[in-house]
Amino acid sequence: MERVEQHACFGGSQEVWSHRSRTLDCEMKFAVYLPPQARQGRRPVLYWLSGLTCNEHNFIVKAGAQRYAAEHGVILVAPDTSPRGADVADDADWDLGQGAGFYLNATQAPWSKHYRMYDYAAEELPALIEAEFPASDRRAISGHSMGGHGALTIALKNPGRYRSVSAFSPIVAPSQVPWGKKAFAAYLGEDRNAWREWDAAALIARAQERLPLLIEQGEADEFLTTQLWPELLRAACEAVGHPIDLRMRLGYDHSYYFIASFIGEHVAYHAAALAD
Amino acid sequence: MERVEQHACFGGSQEVWSHRSRTLDCEMKFAVYLPPQARQGRRPVLYWLSGLTCNEHNFIVKAGAQRYAAEHGVILVAPDTSPRGADVADDADWDLGQGAGFYLNATQAPWSKHYRMYDYAAEELPALIEAEFPASDRRAISGHSMGGHGALTIALKNPGRYRSVSAFSPIVAPSQVPWGKKAFAAYLGEDRNAWREWDAAALIARAQERLPLLIEQGEADEFLTTQLWPELLRAACEAVGHPIDLRMRLGYDHSYYFIASFIGEHVAYHAAALAD
Repeated sequence: MERVEQHACFGGSQEVWSHRSRTLDCEMKFAVYLPPQARQGRRPVLYWLSGLTCNEHNFIVKAGAQRYAAEHGVILVAPDTSPRGADVADDADWDLGQGAGFYLNATQAPWSKHYRMYDYAAEELPALIEAEFPASDRRAISGHSMGGHGALTIALKNPGRYRSVSAFSPIVAPSQVPWGKKAFAAYLGEDRNAWREWDAAALIARAQERLPLLIEQGEADEFLTTQLWPELLRAACEAVGHPIDLRMRLGYDHSYYFIASFIGEHVAYHAAALAD
Repeated sequence: MERVEQHACFGGSQEVWSHRSRTLDCEMKFAVYLPPQARQGRRPVLYWLSGLTCNEHNFIVKAGAQRYAAEHGVILVAPDTSPRGADVADDADWDLGQGAGFYLNATQAPWSKHYRMYDYAAEELPALIEAEFPASDRRAISGHSMGGHGALTIALKNPGRYRSVSAFSPIVAPSQVPWGKKAFAAYLGEDRNAWREWDAAALIARAQERLPLLIEQGEADEFLTTQLWPELLRAACEAVGHPIDLRMRLGYDHSYYFIASFIGEHVAYHAAALAD
């Protein structure tokens, strides 16, 4: 494991690390922000999963979350969004292949060789963070768009693993929208039953833990009625009594200007859950 | 004038506009953040000048300043760093030509045709902002690196024009460092007397107004002892009793992680001066 960037930031340290992932069988980078409190002992971790086309830099450059992480003493960890490298399968489109891992374990060739972002984000990365950084095993998870889908599905599939979960502009029902259908058909094949394992709206009915869902959604989001459909998640939650707080924000779009405007509220929300 | 981007952000509006600049004789873009208070009436303006290689996006994407501008009711304006376009002179190096206008009026061919960033940033842009947006004529100015040089020289050359000035990691004595010598030789020619008009450390002695200088500087800045030399500005100020607050920050580098960490203090500083 090698540190490739380090910047002082809000009294703590914004770092980028490179390591060989056993799960993905390639070199991977992730960003970690260590708040000043991490010099005194182990701190809880908020994992952030980014959206389509992103890598480990987008969140740490654009969201302004370090200020709030420093205030609350929370470590931030932001991985890349897919396996990477010249020998990793890719696609000419930006919504499939590298930069578009969808936080699932692919079963179809050529993707199944490297595309295991679910195992990476849910298992390998937290184990690495807790072994190599001053991180406790108190975990929260959030993300944006494809990464909001990742945060919700990973939390729902791992009861007891996360103290809290939230998402900005998530793809809540990938089985039913163009981005998800395209990715799932490629990564998982045409058997729709397999898709349900990676679909938050479908997982709600059999969730073994009623972990509340905090969803932040801009009403002016250009993908709201084509790719996101948060009402599908609210309906799934209401059908089984799963707690959900869906916050519709007038005028906000899909960009990081939206995330920056509300990330402070999310970090505070997770910090409260992590402090219990 | 055409609005090319608009995003809700911290209750206000982050916009990017394109217009034909008479001064520069080319199409130019600038970013403007309108805080929520600008819907109720005219607000003061903090102008931000960016550094080498930057355009109108860097500050609005990376600094996280909108939060503080919304808190204090200050408009933020961030222009591009040079004239732009296929018919505008350029250089293969990143520290000369497009992206490196140095906020001066060039006198040498081929640069003198378009490179008048001083007139643009000090005259044309404020006049445009105050005519077309809900902006008052209360102005403050700040910037980073080459843009810190721009903020300092523009404030020093225009007594009474700005209520306050600050700079992050500024090039304080361009006549004496490699970036400045290269740019000044190209834009201004070899007459060193002409260079003194665009050098903050040289302008201090004959400043007609003792406007305090607030300088934020990382001690781990990779350009500190090659390009920046803030001690030269402090010495020039002390020689004539010009007020300067030079804040050396342990561990911080030249990046936007440094700017983000302290921009809140600068916005508050300018807001206090603008509120008088």
